[in-house]
Amino acid sequence: MHVTVNAAMSVDGKLASRKREQLAISGPNDFARVERLRKECDAIMVGVGTVLSDDPSLTVDDETATRTTGNPIRVVADSRARTPPDARVLDDAAETVVMVSEAVPTDHVTTLEAAGVSIIEAGENRVDLAAGLEALSERGVDRLLVEGGGEVIFSLFEADLVDELSVYVGSLLIGGRDAPTLADGQGFTGDYPDLELQSVDRIDDGVLLEYAVKNR
Amino acid sequence: MHVTVNAAMSVDGKLASRKREQLAISGPNDFARVERLRKECDAIMVGVGTVLSDDPSLTVDDETATRTTGNPIRVVADSRARTPPDARVLDDAAETVVMVSEAVPTDHVTTLEAAGVSIIEAGENRVDLAAGLEALSERGVDRLLVEGGGEVIFSLFEADLVDELSVYVGSLLIGGRDAPTLADGQGFTGDYPDLELQSVDRIDDGVLLEYAVKNR
Repeated sequence: MHVTVNAAMSVDGKLASRKREQLAISGPNDFARVERLRKECDAIMVGVGTVLSDDPSLTVDDETATRTTGNPIRVVADSRARTPPDARVLDDAAETVVMVSEAVPTDHVTTLEAAGVSIIEAGENRVDLAAGLEALSERGVDRLLVEGGGEVIFSLFEADLVDELSVYVGSLLIGGRDAPTLADGQGFTGDYPDLELQSVDRIDDGVLLEYAVKNR
Repeated sequence: MHVTVNAAMSVDGKLASRKREQLAISGPNDFARVERLRKECDAIMVGVGTVLSDDPSLTVDDETATRTTGNPIRVVADSRARTPPDARVLDDAAETVVMVSEAVPTDHVTTLEAAGVSIIEAGENRVDLAAGLEALSERGVDRLLVEGGGEVIFSLFEADLVDELSVYVGSLLIGGRDAPTLADGQGFTGDYPDLELQSVDRIDDGVLLEYAVKNR
């Protein structure tokens, strides 16, 4: 499986302010680029934190797309199945998979399944992303696009599962030691993932940086 | 006074890992660029956190430079004068100014003055950077280079004191919700400083982004 992480951040690496409210970091040309990325992939993944803060629909902007044609599968990494039943990501516009851990409360799973969601269970207390991606692969997902947030992005890098990283750097500064960043989690303290800068492009008022991830 | 902030960060906006150990983020060509920036300024400022974690000397790499010729004044923003008496920034290579608040313990000031340091007192509990920079200006500082860390950088943006921002984005990922970022502090939650991207240059294995700061 080929895994691409794509995100927009401020010049100081923040995905949002400490209040985690959505914020326009990029502009129309970058939105169009992300739309193309979405159309090229088989599935789009986010962490549950992104579902709770942004409530994204994760669909392509195409009126002919339906649950079975056109729209990539939507995937939520959600160890305890906290995705609310009325989240946009669970609507009828596309198929949705929620990856949970074995520690998930049974009634949460029942609620999600009633909403038409497929469940992948992997990992004891937290989602085992390697096993989860393997299960997605068995369902025919060859190209996965990850759109954040910082916790799931860090976990994917930690598990050595990322092939490409695209970062749009918007021309604003957010600041805040508690604001979410592109890669949160516990963080590395050595053996840092090594990136190879592939391209640098000015888009809208900012700049897009594209990297290949070297094997650690 | 013209204030330039310069820093090197990972692609996820971190200045160091959560352990705050020094880490080579940029390469030889970027070091040479920073050296030129230092030679062009009248003073170089860091926050005390940077002194405590990195113990930088903040001098230009010039054997003919002395305390009175060649080296810019070194400035430490240090509300409670925690700069250790044996810190490199207090050595004989250049003049040093420590900016403290009124809450500074008297014996800390005495220790620093004994080490030949000039003291600027501004602000009640934390250094009032606007007043501190005004005092530097009265001492003939026209061009100030700020080299971090994230707390002092945020405070300068908060006080609307920054004219230019240069960020070297190294091709590595550090991660960590507790790792220091380019701009920490409390963070903005609106009225974000608006930057104008002036130039984008590939240097070493990474990219240098230069911004003008628009008035808020």
